Amino acid sequence: MFMRIDKLQAELPAPKKADPNAGAALQELLGGKYGEMSTLGNYMFQSFNFRSKSKLRPFYSLVASITAEELGHVELVSNGVTMLNNGPDNDGDKKDGGDISMAPWAAMQEIRSFAGFASYGGGAVPVNSNSMSWNVDMVTTTGNVVVDLLHNFHLECGARIHKLRVYETMKEATGREVCGYLLVRGSVHAHAYALALKQITGVDITKMLPTPNINLDKIPECQKYLNEGSHRRLYTWSPKDYAEIAGIWGNGEMALPGDPPGELEVVDGIPQGGKIHDLTGAPSAFTPDYAPEEMFEIASKLYQKSR
Amino acid sequence: MFMRIDKLQAELPAPKKADPNAGAALQELLGGKYGEMSTLGNYMFQSFNFRSKSKLRPFYSLVASITAEELGHVELVSNGVTMLNNGPDNDGDKKDGGDISMAPWAAMQEIRSFAGFASYGGGAVPVNSNSMSWNVDMVTTTGNVVVDLLHNFHLECGARIHKLRVYETMKEATGREVCGYLLVRGSVHAHAYALALKQITGVDITKMLPTPNINLDKIPECQKYLNEGSHRRLYTWSPKDYAEIAGIWGNGEMALPGDPPGELEVVDGIPQGGKIHDLTGAPSAFTPDYAPEEMFEIASKLYQKSR
Amino acid sequence: MFMRIDKLQAELPAPKKADPNAGAALQELLGGKYGEMSTLGNYMFQSFNFRSKSKLRPFYSLVASITAEELGHVELVSNGVTMLNNGPDNDGDKKDGGDISMAPWAAMQEIRSFAGFASYGGGAVPVNSNSMSWNVDMVTTTGNVVVDLLHNFHLECGARIHKLRVYETMKEATGREVCGYLLVRGSVHAHAYALALKQITGVDITKMLPTPNINLDKIPECQKYLNEGSHRRLYTWSPKDYAEIAGIWGNGEMALPGDPPGELEVVDGIPQGGKIHDLTGAPSAFTPDYAPEEMFEIASKLYQKSR
Amino acid sequence: MFMRIDKLQAELPAPKKADPNAGAALQELLGGKYGEMSTLGNYMFQSFNFRSKSKLRPFYSLVASITAEELGHVELVSNGVTMLNNGPDNDGDKKDGGDISMAPWAAMQEIRSFAGFASYGGGAVPVNSNSMSWNVDMVTTTGNVVVDLLHNFHLECGARIHKLRVYETMKEATGREVCGYLLVRGSVHAHAYALALKQITGVDITKMLPTPNINLDKIPECQKYLNEGSHRRLYTWSPKDYAEIAGIWGNGEMALPGDPPGELEVVDGIPQGGKIHDLTGAPSAFTPDYAPEEMFEIASKLYQKSR
Amino acid sequence: MFMRIDKLQAELPAPKKADPNAGAALQELLGGKYGEMSTLGNYMFQSFNFRSKSKLRPFYSLVASITAEELGHVELVSNGVTMLNNGPDNDGDKKDGGDISMAPWAAMQEIRSFAGFASYGGGAVPVNSNSMSWNVDMVTTTGNVVVDLLHNFHLECGARIHKLRVYETMKEATGREVCGYLLVRGSVHAHAYALALKQITGVDITKMLPTPNINLDKIPECQKYLNEGSHRRLYTWSPKDYAEIAGIWGNGEMALPGDPPGELEVVDGIPQGGKIHDLTGAPSAFTPDYAPEEMFEIASKLYQKSR
Amino acid sequence: MFMRIDKLQAELPAPKKADPNAGAALQELLGGKYGEMSTLGNYMFQSFNFRSKSKLRPFYSLVASITAEELGHVELVSNGVTMLNNGPDNDGDKKDGGDISMAPWAAMQEIRSFAGFASYGGGAVPVNSNSMSWNVDMVTTTGNVVVDLLHNFHLECGARIHKLRVYETMKEATGREVCGYLLVRGSVHAHAYALALKQITGVDITKMLPTPNINLDKIPECQKYLNEGSHRRLYTWSPKDYAEIAGIWGNGEMALPGDPPGELEVVDGIPQGGKIHDLTGAPSAFTPDYAPEEMFEIASKLYQKSR
Repeated sequence: MFMRIDKLQAELPAPKKADPNAGAALQELLGGKYGEMSTLGNYMFQSFNFRSKSKLRPFYSLVASITAEELGHVELVSNGVTMLNNGPDNDGDKKDGGDISMAPWAAMQEIRSFAGFASYGGGAVPVNSNSMSWNVDMVTTTGNVVVDLLHNFHLECGARIHKLRVYETMKEATGREVCGYLLVRGSVHAHAYALALKQITGVDITKMLPTPNINLDKIPECQKYLNEGSHRRLYTWSPKDYAEIAGIWGNGEMALPGDPPGELEVVDGIPQGGKIHDLTGAPSAFTPDYAPEEMFEIASKLYQKSR
Repeated sequence: MFMRIDKLQAELPAPKKADPNAGAALQELLGGKYGEMSTLGNYMFQSFNFRSKSKLRPFYSLVASITAEELGHVELVSNGVTMLNNGPDNDGDKKDGGDISMAPWAAMQEIRSFAGFASYGGGAVPVNSNSMSWNVDMVTTTGNVVVDLLHNFHLECGARIHKLRVYETMKEATGREVCGYLLVRGSVHAHAYALALKQITGVDITKMLPTPNINLDKIPECQKYLNEGSHRRLYTWSPKDYAEIAGIWGNGEMALPGDPPGELEVVDGIPQGGKIHDLTGAPSAFTPDYAPEEMFEIASKLYQKSR
Repeated sequence: MFMRIDKLQAELPAPKKADPNAGAALQELLGGKYGEMSTLGNYMFQSFNFRSKSKLRPFYSLVASITAEELGHVELVSNGVTMLNNGPDNDGDKKDGGDISMAPWAAMQEIRSFAGFASYGGGAVPVNSNSMSWNVDMVTTTGNVVVDLLHNFHLECGARIHKLRVYETMKEATGREVCGYLLVRGSVHAHAYALALKQITGVDITKMLPTPNINLDKIPECQKYLNEGSHRRLYTWSPKDYAEIAGIWGNGEMALPGDPPGELEVVDGIPQGGKIHDLTGAPSAFTPDYAPEEMFEIASKLYQKSR
Repeated sequence: MFMRIDKLQAELPAPKKADPNAGAALQELLGGKYGEMSTLGNYMFQSFNFRSKSKLRPFYSLVASITAEELGHVELVSNGVTMLNNGPDNDGDKKDGGDISMAPWAAMQEIRSFAGFASYGGGAVPVNSNSMSWNVDMVTTTGNVVVDLLHNFHLECGARIHKLRVYETMKEATGREVCGYLLVRGSVHAHAYALALKQITGVDITKMLPTPNINLDKIPECQKYLNEGSHRRLYTWSPKDYAEIAGIWGNGEMALPGDPPGELEVVDGIPQGGKIHDLTGAPSAFTPDYAPEEMFEIASKLYQKSR
Repeated sequence: MFMRIDKLQAELPAPKKADPNAGAALQELLGGKYGEMSTLGNYMFQSFNFRSKSKLRPFYSLVASITAEELGHVELVSNGVTMLNNGPDNDGDKKDGGDISMAPWAAMQEIRSFAGFASYGGGAVPVNSNSMSWNVDMVTTTGNVVVDLLHNFHLECGARIHKLRVYETMKEATGREVCGYLLVRGSVHAHAYALALKQITGVDITKMLPTPNINLDKIPECQKYLNEGSHRRLYTWSPKDYAEIAGIWGNGEMALPGDPPGELEVVDGIPQGGKIHDLTGAPSAFTPDYAPEEMFEIASKLYQKSR
Repeated sequence: MFMRIDKLQAELPAPKKADPNAGAALQELLGGKYGEMSTLGNYMFQSFNFRSKSKLRPFYSLVASITAEELGHVELVSNGVTMLNNGPDNDGDKKDGGDISMAPWAAMQEIRSFAGFASYGGGAVPVNSNSMSWNVDMVTTTGNVVVDLLHNFHLECGARIHKLRVYETMKEATGREVCGYLLVRGSVHAHAYALALKQITGVDITKMLPTPNINLDKIPECQKYLNEGSHRRLYTWSPKDYAEIAGIWGNGEMALPGDPPGELEVVDGIPQGGKIHDLTGAPSAFTPDYAPEEMFEIASKLYQKSR
């Protein structure tokens, strides 16, 4: 079972302006080859399909708990995409949308993802930066523990190059923060799968890290998280379960050489997280609707009743 | 953010034998047109993309909290699929797989989803019963609250016919239990979206329920859940958030006419849930591997260390 | 613009029993590589995109009018598919569906297209016999008249082999009649496109016909249509337009050597056509619904009002 | 069966210049999530698969006759797309294409849909604005009348938001006219499906209209059609059939509150329609071909013969 | 550039009977997740896209030369598929196809891949065992040498489990031989990529082999190839190029522990290979055509002229 | 079996600058409707699936040997794509990538194929110019010789229009050279398939050439190849096999009227070919990696060992 907390894993700065092509670029980290839908889909289905869970508990718990973190990554990137598509929060959603006959959205014809505007109103969906859908071909779940872990290790390395490149295209703060945070957490996952493989096969594959061959200290947006020790920390993402991951992530294992030094540690539960932006609607795009005052009033009354 | 609890939403009886065609049929409820991946994908992305969250709090919270329940539905169906593909839990995973040259899996050539065996080892993946991938075309998130809620109401009605038909093909207990549980919970969601639409539009669309035109008392597997009052209960699926759904689900609203009577109520947190089956591996299918004793021993030691 | 007449192009005999695998086989002629969705999609979009329509009138009219016939082919095959999936018309739709807890549709787990039952209730959809969707890759519309006509000629030859093979798998009358009718009409289209190419390029490509190398007199179900002269007849499928096709199909051109002899002729309008079967519902599959008596009564009253 | 008339449902003004990005935007209304291929595909297959046609005649006829209108919508949007891609009609197709070695189409490298130029010569194809193919996942045909009608009602509301947004990006007259016409006709269909649902379920879902919450009087391009009363009119699109739709659309039912008042009426047959543009070819793009004079001459002779 | 030799990499025994479900199972090794189209597609595009080819020559040559071997694997599996679909070579193609009205192919309605018969005449195509198309999502080519090699290593381990499982379903000799041969050659590739990674990263990932954890001596069909030393041999698959692979595959490196011992060696050029079966046509399926005698005679005359 | 030679079929001039939109345009000739993946996929699978190979030897050899040429076409276009995406060869790959935090790749957000940069590092993959994947729907292999040859003839005509249009968008030399070369070789293939059809059916379909209706003398980049007589030459692409194609391509057959005159001839083996560019890496894009000096040194040592 899963629970939800109304927060993001990281606090995102508001965008200064709407930038749909930046939003489309960030979609690559959502539904792209190595995007968060892929990491989520892999670990989620692997955890459902895991054989001999009780006999392989630490390995099962590793995959199962990271699944929960990946859900939050999907949420984080999605929020980033929608924020970039929408621009700064403001009180625009109080207006009635104005005169829609003056081609208020003409600029959309030149963006990369027109369907993202027309069908999804600038919302995030599980597609890549070129609007291709995420699908089952991005899921690996062979049921063989070594093949699956090896895949996961490779996937996190691929995801790292993916994130680095998307980061290198981003000029504004919202998208850069998403990349910075995910790069740190992705490094943790690559490290964790490497340790798991080392335990089973005896091959110290952690020595391949970092792949690509660049340390996170080159990326300003990563420093805050490195300073907090996020790179040494694996959460259980659970009220009570999955503590067995400490058999893999811990036992005196240390941070990777290029990162701030220190011992690896398992933290019960979840991090503090950041606020979810309010995503002001655009009545002229019919979000939440044209002339929404009446709907706001209804909602306000229902909110009172619920207290 | 999301958390995970190592339980299923409902206790599933073990299958009496492996039945890959039943497993493939149940895949329809996972990755099919109206499957749980679709309900999850719709509500999850709608909740990420929701505009004017603070002004429309009860509606936002409704979609956001049901998302967490749908994750558990995806998990439940996936467990059901894998259990049906694997058959009863036993100690088979202690063996070394035996002589693989005697075509031990010849029977797989006649099943509907050969790739399900060859590539996924009988594990669940986001495809329908005919192996077609789930994809973005099954996601609706327009950003317009009425259109999205209307879609969700329709989706739950469609999902109900979908589940009813799959149920009608199932002879064994595992798959029937999955359907029985989901039919009750799906009815709750259809009812909840109808109430939300009624609040905004004034149209009492709850009067369209049940669609299709059959009460759940016709389905023995639903009775346990109806008796518990599950059909009158919406969980927040959260430690502290989303309580505003009580503005919609509550306020004296009652159970639907064909169901056991009573008032609708919001329950903080999650239900008790049931045990996840251990899914015995099949070494001859290389799950968790051929001759896995050494791996079991390593895992056992790591487990000790984590305590 | 298009009009619709409530008839099929050919009268189909009722199936003796439901046979979903035969229905799935016939789907190949609907959404398969050379299926009717492909011929429709090709000619329809070619006619919309046709350049210099006025200067190339006879060629434009040929493609435009055959489009209307292909719509009727899609309809004919779809009716055949659904009839095979449902079995004989009866009064079953008056019942309430009975006890659905006894796995009344268990047999569906063994059919090729489970999703066809679960999601579409046995209805036809634009997929091939293996449930793969028809899509844009099956549409050719280059805007170059010779390339497009050459493609169409090839497409009709490919469709002929496609229909011949599907026919060779069919034991019951409904599907065989569909194939027999379509083989005759497909031959007309291949012949027509060949004549068009001959006019433009001077190459007498009609001499390649029939491809594959077998005459229609080998197929009993074709005889009725050959006897009527259907193979020598091109309809305008229009109240008043497209008569210019007589510039291509006519002018003393004769039937192909292996077919009953005679001159080619253009017929204004449409053929007489046959009755559409009533497709009795199956309440236990919720078609038109479970316990539909009330709905039938409402419909009956509305019908009275409309007279 | 279907017939074809060589006219469009609405007269489209010629574009002032070629604008492939506007053409690509309009593709969203052809092959997009809520595009005309979707409405066509849904109603067409629902009408083929409709159970108990005779007992539910008015409902069957509603879906069946709207299918024919949707064919004309597909045609209208396709014509709009191709016109926008090609620019004004002129005599360009008489030239030989000129020197093709000077990169005459270099500007195409910057448009959104390069394949639309290279493979389709600027013609319309069943894809969305991002070149993703229309496919079966956009077809709903459960065989359950209420689920299908509910889907159709939702689909028309979604299509309305879709059209409104596309309209808001359009600066030139061709695309705006397409949107204006379709918005009026789409409103009729939403209204009609709402009335059908009201008859069966007793729920007055017409009160949800308009969704999104904006009246058509905000859109100048709709006024001509509203003034004609198009919003109160349902055609049978048939020489003689489908008149039973008057049981649903009529009986004293009135236009929606925000539209010009008046009683709903069924019109036998089809509207007058407008002229199909000639779509001048571009020999340098090999449409209809390079140096097409000889082909024009052949066509002219064949045309004479056909008279 | 590529050259072709009219031989298969391995001699395949003729099937005793046509077995389309075995053919469909073998398709998994052609177009499935880990099939030969995937290995080919990965290495082929990686070799085209390889950066700094001259500075990284041995690594480039490794990927480039294995590409050529993978082409032969695609050919081998395709031949196996078609042979299983067709059955033993005989003189059937001399007949005229007989009476096609007696449903000679009725049995095809029960096979898994009906489209494989109807559209491809039993020929191999790039799809998996469930008829899903191979596509770009199965190609990894990041341009980063370590990520790509790591992917390739993982891919070969995944392909090994894939082949082992398909082998375990095969009762007849043709398919088993395909699997046996490919398992040996796949092991060579996994080993080679592991050595390449070891050279660059210093991590001895060869110690992870074999994955899955089973030696090839368990598979009778592998013994012939192991006895020949095929597992120690990498071909250049080129008249003169790619010899630099000896920098990776050689230098005293030895066979893997579970395989027959010996030093690794590079062989210039290609192996001897085996005969391609003649694949007798089936005139009743219109392959090569119905009544093909005339065509055979034409071909025979042309053959004489070419000598 | 296949062999590989480390050369391209034609020498490509280096691009003057990186131009990802030109690269994306050229992708249309790789993975587009009529791209080289399509011609390759068609002929390759047709050759594997060819029935009665020995009785139809000249026809089989034609398809089989052209397959090998198409492999080289896929290679040529892929090299062109990657070169255009990367720009001129330089020593950039010796640097360490510099400061990646300054958005060095910001310009990528405006290109058509962002995923081409983020996931593939500017490498070629089997997609079209709009990033849609090549797939099985682009493969025709019916097993019927006439249908398949007719398809191939049509395919080459379609590919010609495809190449002409892409050429007309290209301003820089690399892409123009790719088009020029392929136009000449594509004409040879169209001619060859036409001759094969003429032999079997007696219809002189060569008279349809050229389609589209323009001679290659209009394209400066073709002249070099026409002057060499490339248009009259079919290679066997084999050390010893496929010489029987001389039964079709030869026997006094002459070049097409619009091309430089002369007799058709078969050349054993392969053409001389041109150099493969070195494709300098971009460390800031992690190709071959960030700070690759150590890797270059390792490779250099291995290269020494291999000599």
